[in-house]
Amino acid sequence: MQLLKDKILKEGKYLGKGILKVDSFMNHQIDPALMNEVGKEFARRFKDLKATRILTAETSGIAPALACAMILELPLVFARKHKPVTMAENPFTERAESHTKGSIVDLIVSPEYLKAEDRVIILDDFLASARTIKALVAIVASSGAELVGIGAVIEKSFEGGRDALKYLNIPIESLAAIKSFDNEQINF
Amino acid sequence: MQLLKDKILKEGKYLGKGILKVDSFMNHQIDPALMNEVGKEFARRFKDLKATRILTAETSGIAPALACAMILELPLVFARKHKPVTMAENPFTERAESHTKGSIVDLIVSPEYLKAEDRVIILDDFLASARTIKALVAIVASSGAELVGIGAVIEKSFEGGRDALKYLNIPIESLAAIKSFDNEQINF
Repeated sequence: MQLLKDKILKEGKYLGKGILKVDSFMNHQIDPALMNEVGKEFARRFKDLKATRILTAETSGIAPALACAMILELPLVFARKHKPVTMAENPFTERAESHTKGSIVDLIVSPEYLKAEDRVIILDDFLASARTIKALVAIVASSGAELVGIGAVIEKSFEGGRDALKYLNIPIESLAAIKSFDNEQINF
Repeated sequence: MQLLKDKILKEGKYLGKGILKVDSFMNHQIDPALMNEVGKEFARRFKDLKATRILTAETSGIAPALACAMILELPLVFARKHKPVTMAENPFTERAESHTKGSIVDLIVSPEYLKAEDRVIILDDFLASARTIKALVAIVASSGAELVGIGAVIEKSFEGGRDALKYLNIPIESLAAIKSFDNEQINF
């Protein structure tokens, strides 16, 4: 997606150690026009999957996933990192290591909003090592729902996440794939 | 906003102790069509404020604030609860007590995305005691920006948040105001 790549080149900052800062349009500030285009592009790629729900993880997955959910007209569920007092007992819970935060987080989804009859698309901001996405995949498996697609706004191809998800045999779509940060540059 | 009130009456659950569960359309699962209407209504009420940025707090404020930001075509900044490695040093930081979680959280905004020349609308999911919103107000004050409006999807009028913000002398808009939970009912 050229518009996204242009934005990454213009505003993204490589901070070293494989970390890309895109806080100006996705991870702290959100560019709503860009998110709308991101949502449209996901919707175009996933429109034939007969999905019934989109699943993401708080926090940074919410904006791109909501943009797509608006166009596909599907309910969006975001996995919580802490169980709120409003959540029913015995939620689906999986552990994931956060790459950029270096900490372990729980991802928690209530069975009220993920059913065995669902066809689920997982959407997130990044596909890197796929640790967060693998936790979401496990949550979908626990629910008995069928996972029909995975999407990420930005992929770091060199971190192996796509390979780790290949066994699922479903479409995996990223809108901008970074091949390397060689020479401290963003290389698509 | 009648559509929202109908949704609250249909799907909201009063859990006691002043806590309203709206996890089916805002706080865990998001109804994108409803959020779009919420965004439109905020945009209609705030369109003449000449705002330059919208500020919310992760997590549940993001969806309604993004829906509004898409229509007003304004950048949306969400305050982080933990400082990510990508954030610049010396961010604006304020402490707030979470009503539903019973815990203290930090709200953190980078000075990169909140400038003295900004005109800011604060949007959040709930206006109850206004503890979160007061922390956001303090962040806007720290930045030197001008706060021009405050909006919340659902207000619990009996918790005094609106009164606590009155001194600001700016428009405070909620789309559904709950007067009481008397008789374990949701009373608008």
